[in-house]
Amino acid sequence: MSFDFDAHIRKIPDHPREGIVFYDLMPLFQSPEGLTASVDTMAAWGRERQPDIVLGAEARGFILGGALAQALGIGFAAARKPGKLPWRTVQHEYRLEYGTDALAVHRDAVSRGQKVLIHDDLLATGGTAEAKCRLVEELGGTVVGCIFIAELAFLPGRERLRGYDIGSLVNYDTEAVPA
Amino acid sequence: MSFDFDAHIRKIPDHPREGIVFYDLMPLFQSPEGLTASVDTMAAWGRERQPDIVLGAEARGFILGGALAQALGIGFAAARKPGKLPWRTVQHEYRLEYGTDALAVHRDAVSRGQKVLIHDDLLATGGTAEAKCRLVEELGGTVVGCIFIAELAFLPGRERLRGYDIGSLVNYDTEAVPA
Repeated sequence: MSFDFDAHIRKIPDHPREGIVFYDLMPLFQSPEGLTASVDTMAAWGRERQPDIVLGAEARGFILGGALAQALGIGFAAARKPGKLPWRTVQHEYRLEYGTDALAVHRDAVSRGQKVLIHDDLLATGGTAEAKCRLVEELGGTVVGCIFIAELAFLPGRERLRGYDIGSLVNYDTEAVPA
Repeated sequence: MSFDFDAHIRKIPDHPREGIVFYDLMPLFQSPEGLTASVDTMAAWGRERQPDIVLGAEARGFILGGALAQALGIGFAAARKPGKLPWRTVQHEYRLEYGTDALAVHRDAVSRGQKVLIHDDLLATGGTAEAKCRLVEELGGTVVGCIFIAELAFLPGRERLRGYDIGSLVNYDTEAVPA
């Protein structure tokens, strides 16, 4: 029997703005069983793809990104907002619903030829994951998979990440109705 | 023989401003051996204090905070900047060299009577760690220890955290001179 991830994800209505349901994964991380089930299930998915390093984006992608790397016996590299990393970086801009945002990684985060497992807590529109894939490729690495905890399948994340191998632990086909 | 943590910490001169040496832990996280040695050593220190949950602050305290919780078989709770957490929070302001900053946690992050292990990557002036201790106590929990990767012992962090049990993997008695 598989773990009930959905039961540990809090649905918050009208956050960050009216009409939007926010998927709060903090209760999952706070639960010892939830944390372990998340890391173990993602690690099993990732292990088959034989990555050399995990790349996660700040801030929520850091929480299980380090644990996932540890479970796989590999290192963890961080993608951050521009200006947050202290050393030399490469940067990628991506489209939001309104305007643009950007992510940066250190130039030594990924080496030429390295196989990279992308991780984030949530797959929504796929903007940050796509930016991470581009950064990996710019540094000469290969994306061997993108593993998320929750996937909002009613948004076009998979479409934006077409050509990449995508996995998630819990899949929301329609937007949740808060209790 | 213990792991050479210092060798994996990059010292960056004049960051974020002239005259300040920045301790960049990203090379440590990117190294499989560095990541494992960090998590295992912190977990051994933490295990003796029998915590119920790990509390880490965004963003860099998330990277090994989740892995540390996973290694201890407990959950992870997140302290974030005000406005970043979607549910009901408690908040604590703390002094910086110039001005103030604040941290928040969800009201269910720590339960009454829980034993909490505080984690962050770096102990500098101790402001964020002190804020986390206050938040734990406001929610009725007990801080059983504060474990850091690197400690800048030439700054008054331990003084500010007097009365708490403090550990670190690598201790800088004097400010590093960048190579």
